[in-house]
Parts: sequence; structure tokens; C-alpha cells
Amino acid sequence: MTTQQLTEQIRKKKSFLCIGLDVDLNKIPKHLLTEEDPIFAFNKAIIDATHHLCVAYKPNTAFYEAYGLKGWKALEKTIMYLNVKHPEIFTIADAKRGDIGNTSRMYAKAFLEDLEFDSVTVAPYMGKDSVEPFLEFKNKHTILLALTSNAGAFDFQTLSVNQKELYKQVLETSKTWENSENLMYVVGATKAEYFADIRNIIPEAFLLVPGVGAQGGNLQDVCKYGMSSNVGLLVNSSRGIIYASNRGDFAQAAAQKAEDLQKDMAQELIKY
Amino acid sequence: MTTQQLTEQIRKKKSFLCIGLDVDLNKIPKHLLTEEDPIFAFNKAIIDATHHLCVAYKPNTAFYEAYGLKGWKALEKTIMYLNVKHPEIFTIADAKRGDIGNTSRMYAKAFLEDLEFDSVTVAPYMGKDSVEPFLEFKNKHTILLALTSNAGAFDFQTLSVNQKELYKQVLETSKTWENSENLMYVVGATKAEYFADIRNIIPEAFLLVPGVGAQGGNLQDVCKYGMSSNVGLLVNSSRGIIYASNRGDFAQAAAQKAEDLQKDMAQELIKY
Repeated sequence: MTTQQLTEQIRKKKSFLCIGLDVDLNKIPKHLLTEEDPIFAFNKAIIDATHHLCVAYKPNTAFYEAYGLKGWKALEKTIMYLNVKHPEIFTIADAKRGDIGNTSRMYAKAFLEDLEFDSVTVAPYMGKDSVEPFLEFKNKHTILLALTSNAGAFDFQTLSVNQKELYKQVLETSKTWENSENLMYVVGATKAEYFADIRNIIPEAFLLVPGVGAQGGNLQDVCKYGMSSNVGLLVNSSRGIIYASNRGDFAQAAAQKAEDLQKDMAQELIKY
Repeated sequence: MTTQQLTEQIRKKKSFLCIGLDVDLNKIPKHLLTEEDPIFAFNKAIIDATHHLCVAYKPNTAFYEAYGLKGWKALEKTIMYLNVKHPEIFTIADAKRGDIGNTSRMYAKAFLEDLEFDSVTVAPYMGKDSVEPFLEFKNKHTILLALTSNAGAFDFQTLSVNQKELYKQVLETSKTWENSENLMYVVGATKAEYFADIRNIIPEAFLLVPGVGAQGGNLQDVCKYGMSSNVGLLVNSSRGIIYASNRGDFAQAAAQKAEDLQKDMAQELIKY
């Protein structure tokens, strides 16, 4: 999927919502545990109820790996279901990978080619040759961790290098890499003012924004400082949506939470 | 496994060799491709031929993920084979994971508890709360990326923060984390002089050292600057050993390469 197609979907659905599919068997409704594949059954119900309200889904691969083979099978079925039933939806393998060149190439192939995700999240610590193998895939996207939304983000990401914070150096350096037009960035909503500086460095790149709501960020401020001419924002919510209820009505409850966010987003899209 | 037990194994075997099990179906002997599980068949043959010459095995998970479900199955069988047949051998899931707290916990559980690896490699970019969940596992080890051996290491890892290189800041900061006694570090052998500075910061921690041989590092220099009173070194070789031959004699050829390295290591262990 191209970024232009993604922006078109955002305008059409009046939503830049990404729903995180972080499935924890301890948190899903008990009645699903008797299904042959409870993880996929849960994802399918969530997708069926929310696909018209969001433009992206983001399974965090940790939750699938934690269940070993059956987890990977559920991940395969989920991405296949999305690609067949909703090819217009942008898919993100939240895998936070990063390894030396030939090994990064294996990861890139696994997520972008074999599983056919539209994008994968990648950590920047190992530098250019660990990221460029992901960037080679045409109309696929590499979402580089820049400023994350957790407390530990302040351990290294905001340290000063070359008179600027490390995460800004990551933005600047990564712009020079081959096929950098395929880069997007993870930028947490912890401090919305940061988005102004970030937009000075990368005016148009899409930002995947966790931490709106649950971790304290504010949607209005994120849009004020972060929205670009092509929208350029995907705001993620995981637990707030998928675990809105753990009873029989879980899918409808998830849809309601997603719709609340979608309506707020529609308001913002009118403004800019 | 405790670090003391690891040091005992090193002294006993006169080896601090770690063999990387990075299985690529395009590189293994053709005759194995008719086996039911060619990846495991290859690993089993390599392990059977080399286990007396090394103290650790390190499957890089990318190579297994790249083959989807059958890859994960082969990884499970490999670690189970190692744990049953050679419980004295230290096992490393080279996964380079790193995510926010609750997600890191899922990864930690997957690798250290479910798959029963002794250790897992973790990226530091997301800071303390992304690493501490791994450190909670008793007698398990978290191998933090500090200075990697690829060209991209110089993009961010060696940038100056607080008047020192970022990777040194990673060493210093991580020492303050809870259960930091369970930390080991990846330090590439690109420049052996770096080891002297590193030992000033972490005198005793085990270092997993890639890049000896193939990527230009020198075993003598690594030992001169990097060996600690408990040895504190695991030197990794992957392709140089496991792909020494792609014919019927591949396992014996691998054992020969491993023995060459083991003999060099025995020489070094006498010196210090």
C-alpha cells in the first residue's frame, strides 16, 4: 500500500485510528477459550466489528510468540484474514526488530513478503545496514522507533548528541538512508510539543503514535503539532479498545470505543 | 545456569566458543533437504559433532522466523535437544528484542521460560522498563546490545553523549537497573582496544563477542583487553563453522573449524 492510498483511506473513513491486536488469553472473554483457535477467534470478532472505524491494525508479535507455535499460527491466520477481507487496511507487524544486514533481510522477508504485512516496526540502535534491508521492499513501510511512549524512553532516546536529542539524530540520519521514502516513525504522545520539532525534521512522514489516552497524551495536541498535509498520523489504541469488555458483548464494546475515537478524529480532520 | 557454572565449563572444556546456529536452507547440504525437518537435522548433526568444543550455542531467531511455522518448530526442537542432551551448555536466543514493559515480559516468558533458553539478546533503545522484565528471571541472563560488529554501529552507538560514547552510557546506565547481575553484553570485536575501556565500566560481566575472524577482529587482542577473572568472554562464530562444507562431511568440517578455534582459545586461557 502506498502512503497516498493510506491518506485516501483516512479521508474516506474520517479516521486515522490504528487498533493494536495484543491478544492476551488471560484477558479475552472466557467463552472464546473453547474455540479451536481462541486468539484468531478474538481477532476476527474485533476486526469484523471495527474495520469500518479504523485504517490500520497492529498485532504486536510478542503476544503471538508468547504462545509458541499456536501463536504464530494465529498471527498467520489474522494477517491472511485482513489481507483477503480488507485489503484496503494498512497492516503493521509490531515486531521492533533490528539485526545485522543479512539477518535483517530474513526478518524483512518474513514480515513483508511471506506474511504480507504492509509494514514492520524496527529499532534503530544498530544503524543503517540493519534498517536498509527493510526499506528495499516497494510499497512496504519500515516504522522506525524514534521516541517511544514508555518511561525508559528518557534513558537514552532523549540524551543529547550533537546538540540535539538522540531521537532527533535518528530522524535526521535515517532520512539519508536509501529508500528513506519508505520510512515511518514511532513517536509517543507523551509530550505533544515534541511533534513541532519533529515536523521540522520530517515534515511529511507518517508517524505511528502510541500513548494517546491511556499513557496521557492528548489527541487535539498531537494533531495540532503533528498533522501534515497528507495527515501523516496513525494513532494507536490497543487495550482501551480490545478489552473494553470481557463478556459476550466484547466486540460491540470494542466498536463503541473505536467509534468514540473515530468521532474525535473526524473533528480533527475537519480542522486541518 | 549461573555465570559461575559457565566459567567452570569454560575451564573444563578449555573453550569459550559460542556457535551460532543461523540455518539457511540455501546453504546447508542438499541431501538434508529430503529430511522431514531439514533445519533440525542440520542443527542436530552440528551439535553432535561440536558440543565438546564449545560452551554455548546461539540460534539467531530471524533464521527460524523466516521459515514461518516450520521454522519455529525447528527452533523448539533444537533448544529441547540441547536442554535434554547437553544441559551443561549455555543457550542464547539471539532475538534482539525490546519493547515496553508488559510486552517485554511476554518475550521474556517466551524465550526464558517456555523455550527454556539460558539467555536472550535484547536491544537497549527503549531503556530500563523494556529490559528489566527480562532481568527478573533467576539464573537466566539478558545479553544487552552495547557495541555491535556491523558498519551501522557507528551511526548511533559511538555518538558522544555526556562526554562518552552512547554504548558506554548504555553500559553505565544498565548497571543501575534492578537485577543487573543478570546482564551480559554484546560487544563486537571490530576494535579490540575498546575492550579496555569497557572493562573499566563492567569489570566482570560476560561479553558475547561476534566479529572475530570473519569481520576482522583478532582473538589475541580481544583476550588481552577483554578477559576478566572469571574469563567473561563468549566468542561467537556462526557461518565460519557451520558452513565449513556443504557436502556429506559438513559436520566433521564444522568440528574441525570449531577445534581450530578451541585450540587458539586454550592457548589464551593458559595466559590469563
